[in-house]
Order: sequence, then C-alpha cells, then structure tokens
Amino acid sequence: MARPTPLSGFPEWLPADRIVEQHVLDTLRATFESWGFAPVETRAVEPMDQLLRKGEIDKEVYVLRRLHATPEEEAAEAGKQLGLHFDLTVPFSRYVLENAGKLAFPFRRYQIQKVWRGERPQDGRYREFYQADVDVVGAGELPFHHEVELPLVMADGLARLREVGVPPVRIRVNNRKVAEGFYRALGLTDVAAVLRCVDKLDKIGPDAVTEILARDAGASAAQAQACLALAGITGDDASVAERVLALGVRGELLEQGLAELVRVLEAAGEHAPGALTADLSIARGLDYYTGTVYESTLVGEEDLGSVCSGGRYDTLASDGKDTYPGVGLSIGVSRLVSRLVGRKLVTATRSVPSAVLVAVTDEERRRDSDRVARALRARGIPVEVAPSAAKFGKQIRHADRRGIPFVWFLTDDGHQVKDIRSGEQVDADPQAWTPPAEDLHVRVVPGPGAG
Amino acid sequence: MARPTPLSGFPEWLPADRIVEQHVLDTLRATFESWGFAPVETRAVEPMDQLLRKGEIDKEVYVLRRLHATPEEEAAEAGKQLGLHFDLTVPFSRYVLENAGKLAFPFRRYQIQKVWRGERPQDGRYREFYQADVDVVGAGELPFHHEVELPLVMADGLARLREVGVPPVRIRVNNRKVAEGFYRALGLTDVAAVLRCVDKLDKIGPDAVTEILARDAGASAAQAQACLALAGITGDDASVAERVLALGVRGELLEQGLAELVRVLEAAGEHAPGALTADLSIARGLDYYTGTVYESTLVGEEDLGSVCSGGRYDTLASDGKDTYPGVGLSIGVSRLVSRLVGRKLVTATRSVPSAVLVAVTDEERRRDSDRVARALRARGIPVEVAPSAAKFGKQIRHADRRGIPFVWFLTDDGHQVKDIRSGEQVDADPQAWTPPAEDLHVRVVPGPGAG
Repeated sequence: MARPTPLSGFPEWLPADRIVEQHVLDTLRATFESWGFAPVETRAVEPMDQLLRKGEIDKEVYVLRRLHATPEEEAAEAGKQLGLHFDLTVPFSRYVLENAGKLAFPFRRYQIQKVWRGERPQDGRYREFYQADVDVVGAGELPFHHEVELPLVMADGLARLREVGVPPVRIRVNNRKVAEGFYRALGLTDVAAVLRCVDKLDKIGPDAVTEILARDAGASAAQAQACLALAGITGDDASVAERVLALGVRGELLEQGLAELVRVLEAAGEHAPGALTADLSIARGLDYYTGTVYESTLVGEEDLGSVCSGGRYDTLASDGKDTYPGVGLSIGVSRLVSRLVGRKLVTATRSVPSAVLVAVTDEERRRDSDRVARALRARGIPVEVAPSAAKFGKQIRHADRRGIPFVWFLTDDGHQVKDIRSGEQVDADPQAWTPPAEDLHVRVVPGPGAG
Repeated sequence: MARPTPLSGFPEWLPADRIVEQHVLDTLRATFESWGFAPVETRAVEPMDQLLRKGEIDKEVYVLRRLHATPEEEAAEAGKQLGLHFDLTVPFSRYVLENAGKLAFPFRRYQIQKVWRGERPQDGRYREFYQADVDVVGAGELPFHHEVELPLVMADGLARLREVGVPPVRIRVNNRKVAEGFYRALGLTDVAAVLRCVDKLDKIGPDAVTEILARDAGASAAQAQACLALAGITGDDASVAERVLALGVRGELLEQGLAELVRVLEAAGEHAPGALTADLSIARGLDYYTGTVYESTLVGEEDLGSVCSGGRYDTLASDGKDTYPGVGLSIGVSRLVSRLVGRKLVTATRSVPSAVLVAVTDEERRRDSDRVARALRARGIPVEVAPSAAKFGKQIRHADRRGIPFVWFLTDDGHQVKDIRSGEQVDADPQAWTPPAEDLHVRVVPGPGAG
C-alpha cells in the first residue's frame, strides 16, 4: 500500500507528544480525585434521539451503521439508530437517569473521554478530541455553593500544569441571573434574544450589537446602551457588583445574581488568586444554563479560544418524576495539548519510558542481559534490552536516539553503567544501582517555546 | 423522558467497578512502561478500505456518516468512507507506515483503547471494549528473541494483578513453523486448510476433525492421526520437542519451530514460572501469523475464552519498499473486567476517591470547612466538603454511603476527626493529620468471590 496520510481533524501524536498528553490527562485526573470526584466512563454511542434532544439539530453527529446489517435488521433498528457522542454532558445525563437508583446524590463525577463532531476542522477544532469534565449533580436540588467550588477544581488542575510550561489560565465568570435580571428590569423581556445579540459583541462590535438589539430584541437606544454598559464590566472583586448597581438598575433576580457572583469571586480570591475574573459580557451559547457560567482562555494564547467552560443548569436531566440540577465544567484537552506541543511550550525528556538500555555482549549471553533487566525492573526502574548484539557504539546510539540516559554493560570485568550524556561510566550492581530521581521516569517539562 | 435502559453489548460500570477497571488499566500501563514500551494512541476511525484490507470482509465494522452531509459531500467522500477500528493492530500498522520516517526501529509501543465490533453480543463479547496491546515492530527484520520477550511482558502485567484477586493466567503457546513443518513433512501441502480443521478440535472433537481433514485437506487416516497426535501435545519444558520428534516426523522448518518453542518455554521457566505452557493445538484464526502464537485463559474461568492472544507476523505492514515484521499480544480488558466485577473477584474499598468528608457546622461557616479541605488536599489527601450543613448524623451517613472512612468536625472546641468505622474520634490539626496509609487512597482488593 502507499504511505498513508493524516486525516484532517483527527489528531495523532508521536510518542513524545503522547507522553505530554498523558501527563495532562494524569494531572487532571489526580486533581479531580483529590477533590473527591468519582470516575465514570460512558459508552461512545448514544441513540440518535438522545443526542438530538434539547433541539441540538445543528450538531454534526456521526451516525453509525453496521456494515453487514441486512435491510430487515436496518428496518428493525430504524428507531434505535446510534451516533457517536459529541460531548460528555448528554451521555452523563443519560447515565444519571439510568443509574439514579444506584447513585448517591449529590453525585460528584469526573469523566475523561474522546468525543466526536463532524464539523469542518480548524486550528484547535477537531473532529475527534478529548474532553475532561467534572460535574456535581443533585437529585431535586443542588445548593449554590457548588458553583463556587467547581471553577476552583479546574483552576487547581490547570495550576498544577503550570510547572510543566502550561500558561496561566484566566477563568471568566458571569451569572445568568445578573444578565436576565438586568434585562428584565430594563423592560427587555426576550432575554434569550438579548443574550444572543450580546454574545456577538466580540465579533461584530458595539455599533452592530446596538442595531441587532433594536431589530431582534426591540431595544431602544437607551436600553441597548445599558446592555452594552453591563457587558463592559469586568473585575475580580465586589466592586463589580457596585459598578453594575451604579448603572441605576434594580431587581430581585439581578441582586441575587450579583450576590452569587461576588461569592464566587471572593472564594477564588482566597483559594485561587488571579485565576478568576468576572466578565459580564460572557453569555455562553447554551440555553440550559441558569446561574453561574464560565469560559477560560490561556494567557498569551487567547486566539486558541476557550479551553475550559461550563455552568450551572437546573435540569440536566429529568425522568418526569425527578429533575437533576447540576453544575459542571469541561476542559478541551486536545485543543490545549495541540497548542502545548505545537508551540513546544511543553516537552518530554525522552521519547520512551526506559531509563536504562541493557546492552547485549553477544547473542549467546542475551539471557544475562535479560536477568539484569529483570533485576532493575523489580526495583521499579523502566528498562529495555538492546535488540541486537551490535557493536557497543551502535547500541549506545540506539539509546541516544530515544533519549535513554543510561546504558548497562556486562563485561568480563563485571557490570558497568554509562551515563551517555556525560560519558561517565561506573561499576554497578543490578541489585543496588538506581538512577538519579530526575532520570528514573520520563518527565514532562517546559519546552523551548515556554515563556 | 422515560428512564433509559442499557444498550446490549456496550458495557458501563458504576463508579466502584470503574475504579476496578482503572486499576487494571493503570497496572497494565505501568507494566508496559517498565519494559520500555512507548505510548501510542490512534484515532478511533480508519478509512474503510484500510479496515477491510487483509480480506477481513466478515468483520462487522461500524461505518460512519455525518448527519448533515449533503448528497454532494457524500459523493465526494464516497471513496474515503470512515469506520470505527475493530482492533488496535490495523490502526497501528497504518500509524507505523505513516510515521515510519519519524520512529526509531525496532519500535516498542503499547496502546490501550476501545475498539468496536457490530457482532451479536454474548457473555464476555461486546460491541465496544477495551484492548491493551504491546507490539515490537522492526523495519525489514525483527529478531526472534522478541517472541520470547513479549509473552513475559503480558505475564508480568497479569501477575501484578494477582494481588487484587485476578486469577492466575495460563498463556498457551505454539509455533506456526512447528505445525507447518510437521504438516508439510507429512505430505499435507494445504497448510491453511489443515490449520482450520485442527482449530475446530475443541468444538467438534477428534472424530469430526479426522473427517474434515480428509474432506478439506485430503488427509489420509494416518496423516489425520498424526495431526491429532501433534495437537495433543502440551507441556512446559524441552520434553515437548522430544515428544513431537517421537512422532517420527522430521524437517528443517519443524525443527526450527521446535527450537524456538523450547526457547520460549525455557525463558518463561526462568522469568515467569508456571505462566506459559506449550499447547500444540493452538492454531489462531488469523492467517498472518508466521511464528510463535499465543492464547491465554484465566485459571478457573476458562469458559470466558481467551483474555490475551497474539503472535508473530512477518508483514504487519508494507509500503511497497519496506516491510515491517512484528510480534504482539493483546489483552481483552473489558472481557477480563466484566468477569472480575461480575463475580466479585475484585472490588474497590470505596466508591469515591475521598478519604475524608469535612463536615459543615452551619452554612455561615462553610468557608472554614473549605479551608480545612484545602489544607488536607495540599498534603495529598483526597477530600470533599459536605454538601449541606445537615445534622452531623446525616453528614456521617453521607460519608458512610460512599465508604468514606473519616469525617472531620469543626467544633467550638477545635478540630476533631472521626473514623466512622470504629467510632473513634480524636483531636486533629489540618496541617498535620494524615490517615493511615491503607485509607489514603481508594484501593482495589480481592472481593468476596476471590478464591
């Protein structure tokens, strides 16, 4: 066959970059577990009617069909067509309903999986990508304080990645109640229409937003000006609420929203200083958010778009009897990793796990090398044995090409281990020798592109 | 919506069972890395022509289509239809060809991912399941000793799982050269036909195999009897070769195969005693194996079928210029895990990561509880804060339902932590207290069903 070429939108990494991705995934998982989130993994497929619930008819779902399904089987399965999930929220809400009787609520779960969207690929927008989600879901009710907690989980995970070269993250928060309360108090009743207009502010600018506010939401010039003034407010402390109230608008929902927003900012100020900012222009496209909403960018990499977003929803799922409110955020891991490796912000210290290559003197004595490898491995040292009894110079180059720092020799005078970076070679006992801690495992570190 | 029901063939676990699955996956990954295998992950989709290469036309591939693809787009993409991969070997061979210029050979990689097959689900046979693969691939050539090494990697991984209640594994090995050399020396030239007949021995018995050997491979009664005698030989040392030769058949290929088989057994005897047995009835369905082949069952759970199999292939991939021989094994992780959790052979010590629930005295003082949680978390202790300032009895029940062993109280007299299993309650400092090591993280341990 001819040499295959990559498929646009389906990223794959060479081993050294996959090691970077694994480190990101491992760090997020460890963070989520340290906050007490339980692991869930759902199947990759959902029935199409489930995927298209919530009126997400514009989503580019991948629909599945079995290659050898007979026309009769296809007809029988027509109402149960399957598609690949496009996020982890829809399958999680189905999982909660399906297992509600076996789960303890409020239920804290994390979920790290690939999702698929058939959209046109662009820089940082893929057809197959990893998401890492945390959600807390209640049965019937869910206290507000989880809206304070959840962004701190993500801020913690992303902060733990700072040491390997990931840029600082800026989580921007808003509260739907602030926007809705403000618009209603102004006399604008089609809140969804106003949100859709304001959401375009970044793209089309204030003059055009004023025009479409008049056209789509019936806003007067004064009302539009107030909406734009609200959207212009940012800050990371209680002064945000004061500046909103200084616009002269009042209302119960608005004031509740402002109180909630301030609580999020104050907690962040204590537990994750600098990570959160209120930004009253954040609208978030999805209609189901009802309280705090979140969007995040990497400092200095804003062109990448949001790498972590989410919010509060009052009905993630409902089975007619019970409703399940929740709050959750999702990190777009593949988007993040593509930037980290694409700009060499983060790099792996070698392309393989091995700390040691055990050389082979001649094929008759390969078993002696295997025994050395076994002894080192039993003490937790990643090791491989040279594939051939080539000249030692060639075996050293084998290690060098992969970044393996040590080569072990079995000579007639005994065992020696060579640090191929410094050239230093010393006597060594396979039952006792240990590499320096920083060489034991492949590490993920800031790359040449890190600031 | 109505309460959803599971999809047959698409297993999902509750969090405690997912913790078991994660432990299996983590242990295999750690094993593979300790042997120096580099991580690779490939996209979930391949072009259909790639999936159906090697004439695998009977595979029940899931074919993908974009929901909103226009007829024009579908026509343009007709030759490039995508399907979900049904194993990790086909995508890995494509990855090797695609990246051959950037990889160092021999290339040692592990790959742990889900695969999909649209076959009728049965016990232990799923439509979506995890595989964990290791392969060593050479460019142009690959020395035999990797056929000795690879089963030891899997034996090591499965042996590491023994301590959590996974039954011992028995890896049965054969060598295609033994079978082919033997059949050819007997005068049977349609080796593939003989293999297909002998492969049915377990299912249809010796008399029926004798019949189909005559019908499909033209075997005389004496030839069929010799084939059955060969298939009846098992053992774990060099006597296996002696017993084969005692059947009176000779030939260069046969003797080379026997020498290789004995090398595998001798190495296993030293490095993984008891794990490998020669079983000369193993045929393995796939035509592309050319040397050692492997199949494995769990002792006492033989009805589950093979949980780990693979072999040597001389042309995993070829781009017309170079060929890439390899040897690899694959563990069917979902099949294994389904048995482990289905029969309670393995269990998790709790259903959440949290070691501690920090109680909340009243909502006004939630921030004090958050501070305790942060101090514990900073010292590596997984912790969550109670969702409401309910009566302490209710907060203790919240911990108990999830298996969280400790509840932390902030009283007017200071901080105290209670082991809710023993009831013991002691003064504690969030900057200093640490749970016993066995309670720090959720652990995976032998369950009530373990032998």
